[in-house]
Parts: sequence; structure tokens; C-alpha cells
Amino acid sequence: MAKIASEYFKVNPWKIEEEGFNPERNRVAESIFSIANEYMGVRGYMEEGVSCDSLSGSYFNGIYEYGQVDESVQYKGIVNQAHFMVNSVNWLYTRIYLDGEQLDLNNADVREFKRILDFKTGDLTRTFILITGDRKEVKFIFKRFISMNMPNYGYQHIEIEALNQSIEVEIVTGLDFSILHWEKQNYWNIVKQAAGDSFAGCIGETITSKQQVFSGYQLQTNIDIPLHSFKEEKVIGHKLQVNLTKDQKIVIDKQVTNIARRKPEKTMVDLWNEGMDKLNNQEDYSVHMQKNIEYWTTIWKDHDIVIEGDEKNQQGIRFCIFQLQQTYHGVDSNNNIGAKGLTGEAYSGHAFWDTETYCLPFFIFNNPEAAQNLLMYRYNTLDQARKRAPQLDCTGACYPIATLNGEEACTLWQHASLQFQPSTGVAYGIWQYVLNTGDLEFLFDYGLEMLVEISRFLVSRGQWNADHTKFGYYGVMGPDEFQMMVNHNSYTNYMAKKTFEYTLEALADLQVCSSVQYQRLIDKLKLQNFEIGEFKTCAQQMYIPYDADRLLYEQHEGYFDLPHIDVDAIPVEDFPLYKNWSYDHIYRNDMIKQPDVLMFMFLYNQEFSPDCKKANYEYYEPRCIHESSLSPSVHSILAAELDKIDEAVDFFRFATRMDIDDYNRNTAEGLHITSIAAAWVNIVYGFAGFRSDREELVLSPIIPDKWKSYRFKFKYRGSLITIKVTHQEVELVCDGKKMNLIVYGKKYQITSESLRIAVKK
Amino acid sequence: MAKIASEYFKVNPWKIEEEGFNPERNRVAESIFSIANEYMGVRGYMEEGVSCDSLSGSYFNGIYEYGQVDESVQYKGIVNQAHFMVNSVNWLYTRIYLDGEQLDLNNADVREFKRILDFKTGDLTRTFILITGDRKEVKFIFKRFISMNMPNYGYQHIEIEALNQSIEVEIVTGLDFSILHWEKQNYWNIVKQAAGDSFAGCIGETITSKQQVFSGYQLQTNIDIPLHSFKEEKVIGHKLQVNLTKDQKIVIDKQVTNIARRKPEKTMVDLWNEGMDKLNNQEDYSVHMQKNIEYWTTIWKDHDIVIEGDEKNQQGIRFCIFQLQQTYHGVDSNNNIGAKGLTGEAYSGHAFWDTETYCLPFFIFNNPEAAQNLLMYRYNTLDQARKRAPQLDCTGACYPIATLNGEEACTLWQHASLQFQPSTGVAYGIWQYVLNTGDLEFLFDYGLEMLVEISRFLVSRGQWNADHTKFGYYGVMGPDEFQMMVNHNSYTNYMAKKTFEYTLEALADLQVCSSVQYQRLIDKLKLQNFEIGEFKTCAQQMYIPYDADRLLYEQHEGYFDLPHIDVDAIPVEDFPLYKNWSYDHIYRNDMIKQPDVLMFMFLYNQEFSPDCKKANYEYYEPRCIHESSLSPSVHSILAAELDKIDEAVDFFRFATRMDIDDYNRNTAEGLHITSIAAAWVNIVYGFAGFRSDREELVLSPIIPDKWKSYRFKFKYRGSLITIKVTHQEVELVCDGKKMNLIVYGKKYQITSESLRIAVKK
Repeated sequence: MAKIASEYFKVNPWKIEEEGFNPERNRVAESIFSIANEYMGVRGYMEEGVSCDSLSGSYFNGIYEYGQVDESVQYKGIVNQAHFMVNSVNWLYTRIYLDGEQLDLNNADVREFKRILDFKTGDLTRTFILITGDRKEVKFIFKRFISMNMPNYGYQHIEIEALNQSIEVEIVTGLDFSILHWEKQNYWNIVKQAAGDSFAGCIGETITSKQQVFSGYQLQTNIDIPLHSFKEEKVIGHKLQVNLTKDQKIVIDKQVTNIARRKPEKTMVDLWNEGMDKLNNQEDYSVHMQKNIEYWTTIWKDHDIVIEGDEKNQQGIRFCIFQLQQTYHGVDSNNNIGAKGLTGEAYSGHAFWDTETYCLPFFIFNNPEAAQNLLMYRYNTLDQARKRAPQLDCTGACYPIATLNGEEACTLWQHASLQFQPSTGVAYGIWQYVLNTGDLEFLFDYGLEMLVEISRFLVSRGQWNADHTKFGYYGVMGPDEFQMMVNHNSYTNYMAKKTFEYTLEALADLQVCSSVQYQRLIDKLKLQNFEIGEFKTCAQQMYIPYDADRLLYEQHEGYFDLPHIDVDAIPVEDFPLYKNWSYDHIYRNDMIKQPDVLMFMFLYNQEFSPDCKKANYEYYEPRCIHESSLSPSVHSILAAELDKIDEAVDFFRFATRMDIDDYNRNTAEGLHITSIAAAWVNIVYGFAGFRSDREELVLSPIIPDKWKSYRFKFKYRGSLITIKVTHQEVELVCDGKKMNLIVYGKKYQITSESLRIAVKK
Repeated sequence: MAKIASEYFKVNPWKIEEEGFNPERNRVAESIFSIANEYMGVRGYMEEGVSCDSLSGSYFNGIYEYGQVDESVQYKGIVNQAHFMVNSVNWLYTRIYLDGEQLDLNNADVREFKRILDFKTGDLTRTFILITGDRKEVKFIFKRFISMNMPNYGYQHIEIEALNQSIEVEIVTGLDFSILHWEKQNYWNIVKQAAGDSFAGCIGETITSKQQVFSGYQLQTNIDIPLHSFKEEKVIGHKLQVNLTKDQKIVIDKQVTNIARRKPEKTMVDLWNEGMDKLNNQEDYSVHMQKNIEYWTTIWKDHDIVIEGDEKNQQGIRFCIFQLQQTYHGVDSNNNIGAKGLTGEAYSGHAFWDTETYCLPFFIFNNPEAAQNLLMYRYNTLDQARKRAPQLDCTGACYPIATLNGEEACTLWQHASLQFQPSTGVAYGIWQYVLNTGDLEFLFDYGLEMLVEISRFLVSRGQWNADHTKFGYYGVMGPDEFQMMVNHNSYTNYMAKKTFEYTLEALADLQVCSSVQYQRLIDKLKLQNFEIGEFKTCAQQMYIPYDADRLLYEQHEGYFDLPHIDVDAIPVEDFPLYKNWSYDHIYRNDMIKQPDVLMFMFLYNQEFSPDCKKANYEYYEPRCIHESSLSPSVHSILAAELDKIDEAVDFFRFATRMDIDDYNRNTAEGLHITSIAAAWVNIVYGFAGFRSDREELVLSPIIPDKWKSYRFKFKYRGSLITIKVTHQEVELVCDGKKMNLIVYGKKYQITSESLRIAVKK
């Protein structure tokens, strides 16, 4: 099961660089070179078209289409129609003809090919020299970026230069709504199209979900030549022809405005006018690029992680922060973080429990407004969760396993009807956020309503055993997806207990803070006293299978007696097991896919004694095969805490470079955005021993041998704290209000004056 | 959950009679009036076409088509393409025009409508008088039967008589391959068609499975009028026109030959010639009807169950025997018994474990050759079962949950990958058959090979618990389909243990009987000594969860601690639960769908003490909701044994009339053929206390209060034993070799002289 790096890109602390055109690497490179700004994203595909393996993906956050209704689904609660993030307008659409022959890098003599993605500017550059059959040399530069300041704006810049002979160049540029989703089907109807001398615009509408995207552009060229507009069924654009003499260059700048409308609350004319208006006010490439550079400068100033002595991880962690920032930074509380972000169609763009569990800490400690917006996304989709609960014969609100719009999009009942970590994850996220930001306003205005509805769900889905002594969940699957239809899964039961307790605590707090607001909430939710009593009883009587002698939590009732598998003895060729093992075979032994017990020991870390964590780590780690990309980080963090430094480093091995080095051999499908978040968590919570699950923050840094030092910052209630760890000392400085921090078990006050503490060996 | 009779047909001990045309009952009536001869079957539809709800179903045993490949299936072992018994040529195709207007009973003034199915002849008659808009009265008689002697032959007879005025009659008759399966899609291509003056023939071929059906007919009319042949795309036939004067009658006899070719081993020309040859030798209606009457006379002589004092159950049990005989009597060892026989498309014509478990006893004790053929069906599909095992990461042979051709056709992994009662059921069937027939030749030539392969499968699918003290099955579903993904299901474990034991016993027996044949089998199967050792170890170490204090078998490990549901408190409107409960909701409590522990106590009845049976019956019966139509019979049988006569009678309530009175409100989809078998078992094993699971047969009759007497016969090793039970005595007579029988625990010799024993009160 060894995962092996596929090293391909140059190591550079601030860039991803590809040298030479390798068609067989193209699809992976397209994922790596994705650019996005939360609102929209495009894969790093070659806009002029290429005949090798390629996915021209262009996506808008929250723009989705519905799949076909599955008529064969006959049972209640099983989702029979999914929705998915739909591949949308290719606003970079370009075709180039040289002396009448279409440019296709896959069938061309190409020299000095380079693709570079710059973390400091966010722009993607591609350059190469093409040698034609007549030995004409033509130099190409393609650049693109998406504005981090103005969500609607994208830019494309193309230069074509005749190096040694004159050449006839024809360029087609436009907006392509004929894009195929899953490389199979187009989901767009054109509802309006118009073009002028140097602009074109188009509104496309999805067939079933009836969402609309406006796309429009302005063209500028360095040579005064006529632009001829054209229209095809789903494509609109311009053509231009120029005969470049030797050393002459044609430069085209395309400024693009895109507007995505999830619900067409305005008329199509309004959308058109808004789009044209925005387009007319769009600054040009160089002016706006400067703003992008300023944006990224600020990001790196406050959120960078600096690793000295390990260039690969330095590049890796910056790529992670860069891509996470591109995917989400809190522009809109109707956005969430898809497992693949805006970089591919796998996982259908869906957000999972990963958001609250793996991504939220990054935002809480870097961008608390974004963290709040992520939770507001759940509040904004509470009604959908309320509608889901009765489909499962329950009350309250059940959050979906996979979703874009808040509706359950997972069509596999064994996940959608059995896994409840999304719901307890939302409760956990609210708790983490409020604990670390003190944002009681959010808690009382929004969080508590979700907590009550989730608790109601958890009461209704729970059951009592035969003699009514144990409350818990029957027929469930925990986060570990290798144990299905189990009873008293300790993760589910533990997290539900915590949810009940926090709901009760928050209700009591609100009652103290504002009896008026409390009463308003009670009335709004029609919350009965007996329900509050149920929350208490369920919390108290919740059964968590535990062997006190061995300090071991049992993953579920009966787990300890399951047939044992030596996971290290499974042949490499059996992986991934989903493809090579009979489906049922995976589910009937003590092998686990990802941590379950260790997961709640990470989430509520300080609730458990070091001995207990050690016992459980040593029991479960050898049983885990990490078939989830989120698994190694949690193991690394606990290993670091338990002074298992080598294991911690070993599990960290591919955390930051999972996609750059294509460890899972599926980066072609898109980036593992939530694993990217886990890489950040791995450094901060793992090596730095950061803990945020009690009133006071905790640090307990160690440093891998190979590293000279590492440095990161975090925001906390108005302060910006910088932490630098070397092999000698931990250095702490606080910018802003001084704050308390527990380092290696001792409380310190961190101020603007640098505090130095000897590092733990 | 009360099931209520929908009484509609006349009560008559030898017939099903419908009086009056009721369109809303038509589809149920079509199922009830189905005729078949194992080789082929037709529903009792109106051959002239009718505009009310109707399913024109015509089926051939083993003629199937493949469904679409489900591309979304990604996991190993999950079936992604099902096959199903396909609706085939409508060889009764007829259209009738009176004075130019098409006859449609649903839009007509109809008097004296009757449909009668006669158990003594097997023919279906429909008569009525039609009044036209011009007050013309026309009398119709439609008759049809399928030969029980010559599998290929079917007959149709139509009489039309002008009662009061002359009328212009046009009749179209032919062969229709344009039939829609599932009322949606046609699966037939025509590969040959030809027609002469009074005959027509056609060969249709299924699109994907490439199976062929020849259908041909000869027409005879009582009046010498010209027949005009016609051909349409998938229909071929003749038209005739006649002006009937008052009291004049036109009579048409259509003799039909059908040949179904599962594998086109011969050329199409051969098939055509064979068909025309058979057609040319076909006797006419009245001659062949005489043979059918003879056939049924023999059947009733030897296999009738006579119930005095209960006309409804008398009619019911005869209907059951009649339909079971029609569905299967051992014509071909490539046939099996579909859950709906040849009477509808529900369950896709598939055979299930019902065959060995519920149907086999009827055949063992009425028609042992047919019983052998049913087991030969499993031998003939052993290779398919061998191919299935590795799909489940196992060795040996795994028999399918649902099949026509031996391949697994169940696309739901939670059944096809978790339920193993088909495999242990085949082993049980072999054991039952050999034990009661002494057919060692079958055992050694065929049975043992299946037993070894099933045992191999059971070794490979089994697992040891963590400390290697318990062997059994993890992640399974027993016959009770309300407990999914459980460990150590006692039914599965118990039946597997029995399979291992019988395999070992049969191997040892063969070694003693013929060391040469033994060695030949060992060589053929490459059976290793260590494997025989494994069979022993697995049998010995098989874990059967059992509470010795309470004498209770635990349905699976952990079952006793499951949340309890009071099944009687579930509101009627919640049924069927599959439609009204969230899918997962069904699986997480102690409610059971059908007996699991009680099932193996029925199958190996004499292995368990009366106290043990009583304890388990009293524990499990209140937890069972009988959502399987096979469930009540087993409960009735055990209730009778435990002297719970009222419960026995109560559970018997709808056994014989489930379809006639449409208790489940789904007879429209086809008859519950395997429940029909269970009705026979219910009387013989239930009220008569018959037991056949030890060397000597056992009887222990009781009689329901309402009945005056009941009488049945069974065949046993060349003898025909007649048993009559009154409220006073049990009377036993043996025709043929005398035999031993244990009655009420005491051994008797049964001879040709009538033996009378006082009946147990």
C-alpha cells in the first residue's frame, strides 16, 4: 500500500513550474494549474484546444444541474435524483490557425514549453515556441488570472510573435457554452447572445435547474485590425486575421465578466444589463493584476507557513494555502468547499463533513469571517436539512452527506441514510467557532437554532436497547466507511452526546443573556420542555462502548470480536480495495478505512488522558489502511502528541504534496481540496501541538529533524500571533492585544515582545 | 396488518368461475385464469384485446432477455446486468369486427359474461352475449388450453353466433411478436415469417440474449370461407370475413405449435422445419383435449387433497395443486419454478431459494422424478455458481438469489452478496431428496459435486472471530430480510454446519460404496485432504448463538439486545413497510420479516426438543410481521406441532386462497406460485404433522374444528399412501410395497389393509 510520489513539477518555494510538454501528464497538470476565486474557477487547460487527454473545466460555485430521476429507486429515504456542479461556459475559448493550419500542441513541434503558476500573483503563464512544417518559428505567451477582489472578473492575455519568417495568423476567441459535462453531455441552453465590434455577451441557462450564467468580454489588440463577430449555436465570439511579419507580434487582451445566478430572482434583461455594466467598468489586465498582487501579498503576510530546510514541503504547504484561499475565503455564505473545489467534476463539486471537520480550523484562525460564512451556509440550508429528516422517519434537521444546494445528493443509501457525522459536524463546527471567537451573537442568532434542530434529529434517530439501559444509534456507519450497519458506533454516539450537551449549555447561556431572545427562539422552534428533558436524558444515557481495563474505546459494539486482518499483509495490487475486493468483503473484519475513535480524540483532544490516547492510537493505527486522503493527518497529529516523532513525520510525508506529486494517481480528476486543509492542520496541530478545544489555546511544538525551522501565524480575537520553531526554541510574538497561551503545559502571556521558550526534544 | 379477503370468484370445488365482466377486476382475473404446462404459459387475457387494465402475458420457461448494463455500478460483486423472463409471442392474437366495429368488452353491452377455469380439464372458457348498437345479439365462446402431454402444443377455439339478426363478422387471427414487456418495450426481432392458405409461422429472436421462439398455427373453420394471410412488421396472420345469418355460427379452431430455443444450437432452418413438422402432426382440439382430461384425471387420482366441510379451502388447495402442476412437473431439468411461475412479469420470472425450501417437498412426495429434475437444474447451473463465487472473493460455488439461467440476476448487493440460503438450500434439497428417495445414484453422480463446491464456498466465505474460537458468517442477511449485515446469523451458521456434515457423510458413503467413483470425483474436483479437514473443523467450530437458560437461539449475535418494537402497534397504514418506512428504519430493531430461527427448526424439525421449539416459537412469533407470503405456513406448521391449534388455523387462514381472494392485493402482477407450494406443505406438514427429516417418516395429524375430514396421498419409494383424517380417526392405506410410518410417536406398518388410529385431540 505504499504511496509513491510521481515527481514531475520543479521544486520552487513560490511557484509551480512545468517544463516541456508531456501529453500524458496534461490532465494532472490541468488540475494543478487550476485558478479560482471562490466564485468561479477554471482548470489549467489549453484554451486553444488540444487533442491529448484534457478536461476543459470551468465551474461556478453553486451552479449545478440535476441528474436523471432513477426510476428503479423504490424505497423511502433513498435519493433518486442527484445534483452536481455543472461544467459551464468556457470563457477562455480560443482557436488559432497558422497559415491555415489549426494549432494543436499534441501534433506540433514545440520547444521551450513552460507552464508556471505564481503564488504571489495568482496568474498562470504558458509559453512555448512552435516550429511549423515550413520551419517558421512562432513564439506564444498565454496568461490568465481570476480576480481575487472582484469575483466576476477574469482575464486572458495572448501574445503571438513571428520569430524568423512572416506568417498568416487567424485567431478565434469567444464564449463557449457547448461544453460537455463528464465529457458526455451539454446542459446549457442559450437564452441571449449579442456581439459588437469588440465585445460579446451570452446568457446560458441550465436545462433542469434553470440557473443562469452571464458571460461577456471586451477585446483589445495591439494592432488595429478588424474583429469579425460570429455566432454558432452555443458559441459566440470574434475572428481576426493578421499577417505577422518577422519579429512582429499580435497581442490580444480579453477582459471577461461572468455572473452566476443560482436563483433567477431578477429578469434576464436585468442580468444582461448588470453584466454589461460590470464589463464596461472592468479595468484592464495590468491594472487589475496589480490589485491581485496586493491581495496575495496580504495573504502571505498573515497566513504563510515558512519552512526552512525543506523546499518540497515549503512549496507543498504554500500550494495548499494558495489553493484553499482560491477555493474559499468567505465571499458568500451560500458557498461551501467542494471536496475537489472548483478544479474538476469528480465528487460532483459536493461539500462533505470535511468542511467543518478539516477546513474550519484554517479559517477560524486565519479568516474568522470566512469561518462564520461557512457556518452560515449551514444555516442557509437548514430548511433543506429539515426536509431531509422526515425522509428518514425523523424530526429536526439532518444535514446531507454530499450537497451543493443543501439537498442530499448522495444516492447511496448506505451512506446517506446511515452516516450522521455531517450533522454532528455542524454542531461541532459551531462549538469550535464560538469557543475560539467568542461570537455569541452568531450562536444565539443562528447557531442555536441549528443545534436544537440537530439535537431533535439525534433524539429521533436514536434508540434504546432491549432493556432500555443504553441509548445510541443502531444501523449506522461512522466516518470509517469500512464498518456498515453497526450499532453504538462510538464516534456517532460520542459526537451526539457532545451535541446534546452543547445545545443544553447554549440554551442555558441564552436564557441568562437574554430571556427575551430565549423566549423568541423557543416560540419560533416550538421547543417543548419535554424535548429539553430528552436532550438531557439522551446525553446522560448515551452509551459509549469502552473497555476500562485496556482504556480502549470500542469502535462499535462487537468490533473487538471481529475477524482480524493484518492490513500490512494485503498485497499492493489489491488497492484500491473498492475496485479489487468484493463489496461486502470490505465490511466484515476489523480493518478500518479512516480513524473513527482517533477522530473524536482529535476533535475533543483534551477530554482524554495521554494514556487513553496512547492505548487507542496503538490499537487502531495498525488496523487503519488510510483509504481516505484525510486519514494520515489525524494520525500524524496524534503521533506527534504521543512523542512518536518518526511516525508523525512518516504520516505527514505526502500531506502537503498529495496533488503536486499525484500520490493517489487521481489528481487528474481534480485537487483534493479538503486534504489540502488537512495539511495545514497537520503542521499547526501536529508539529506545533496547537489545541483549540478548551477556553485557552495550547501549543506544544516539536520540529522534524530535517527542518531548520518553521513559522506560522494565526489570528485570535483581534490578535495576530507569530510562532517560529527552531531546533533550539519556540519564539512567540503577538501583534495586537496580548493574549494567554499554554506552551508545554505552562501558561504564558504573549505580547508584542518576542517570547522565547526552549523547544521540547 | 390484517389481511382481508377480496372475495370475487364463485366457490366451487373443481373450478374457478367469474360471473359478469368487471374491468377493475380484470387484471387479477387474468392472473387467476393463467394456463401453463411448465414449458409455456399464458395469462387469462382476452385474446381479442380489451381497453381496460390488462396484461397480455405469454411466457416460455427459460426464455429471457438481458436488461441494460448499469454503468453506475462500480464495485466488485455487484451485478450490473440483470436478466428477466421476457413477454413473448401472443399466439392467441385475435381481433374481431362486428359490422365494421371492433369488439372491445370494455366498451360494449355485455350479458351473461362468464370465465371458467376447469381443474379437471385444464381448459379456460369464456362466454358472453354482446348486444350491438343496432340491438343485434351475438353469442361468443372462447376456449383455450395448453397440452400437458406435448409441451409445444396450444389450442384456441372461438365460436361466434348471430342470435337474432344477421351480422357482418371480420376476424383477424395470428401471431403477435410486437408484444410489450413491462408494458414498455418490445424485445423481439423477426427472423423468419411465412404464411399459407390456412397456416402461418414465425420465428422471433430476442435482441440481446439471441434466444429464438418458433410459433406456427393451422386454422380450421366450420364454414368454407377464404382466409387471407397478411404480414405486418412483427405480426403475421389471417383475416376472414363472413356474413352470419340469424342462428348461424362461425367456429374457428387454431392449433398452435410453439418451440422455445434457449441456445440456438441448431440452424434457424432446422428450427423452422421442426416447428412445421410438429404443427403438421398436431391433433385437433377435441382429440387432444381428451388427452388433457386423462392427464388431469391421473393427477387428481394421486395428488388430490380432499377437504370435507370447507369448500373454500377445498377449492383453494385444488387451485394450488393445479397451478403448481401447471408451473412445474419435471418436463425439463433446465426449468425451474419462478416465484410467479409463468403468470406475470413481477420478480422477472426468477427462481429463488423457495424452490428447494418450499416447493421440493411437494415434488419429492408426489413426483420424485420432478424433484430430481429440480435438483438437476442446480447441477446444470453449477458452472454459473462457480463463476459467481470468485466475484464474491470466494471459492467453490455460490448459488444465486434470483435467476433464470443460473447467473445471479439480483442487482441489489445487500441481497446478492449477503444472503446464502440459496446455496445451503440446494444442499438441504439434495439431503431431503436422497433421504426420502434413497437415490444414491443421483447423490454420487451429481449431488456430491454440488455439495463439495457449496462447502468450499462456505469455508471461503466464513471467518473466525478475533480470538479464533468461533467460526461463522460476518456481514450477512439470513432469510429474514429485516436484519442486514449481521454477524453469526444462526440460520446461516446452522445450515452451513449441516451442509458441511452432510458433505462429509456423503463423501464417506461414496468411499465405502465405490472407491473408484470416489477417486474419480476427488480427481475431477481436485479435492485436497486439507479441504476435507476444513469442512470438519468448520462444522465442529461453527458458532450458533444460543441461550441455554432460555433454550433460545439468538437470531444473530446481538439480536437479543436490539431495540424492541411492538409489531402489533404498527399502524395498518404503515404497511407495506418497504413503501412507508425509511429504508434503514426497517433494519434496526428486533422486528423480523419472516422466520429465521423457526425456519431451521422446521427444516431440521426433529433435531430440536419440543421445549426448545416452544420457547423459540413463543419468542419469535410476536416479533414477526410476515411481510413474506411464505412466512405464515411455517408458523402454522410449528403451531400445530406445539398444540396451538387456534394459531395453526389462524396462520393457515389465507394459505390456500392467497391469490383467489387477492389477500396481498398484488395478484394482478401474477400468482404467488411458491406460496401455493407452501399451502400444500401447510396441510401435510402442519395439520397432518408429517415429518420427513429422519430415516422414518412421521405423522401426527390434527384436524381443524371446521373440517369434517381431509385426505391426501403421498408417494414414497414406490408406494402410494393414502391418509384420511376425521375427528375420530386417522386412516392409512398403502398401495404398493408396505412401509413403516411413525404415527403419534409409535411405529406402524402400513399395508394395503386400512389401518385406523384414533385421532389426537
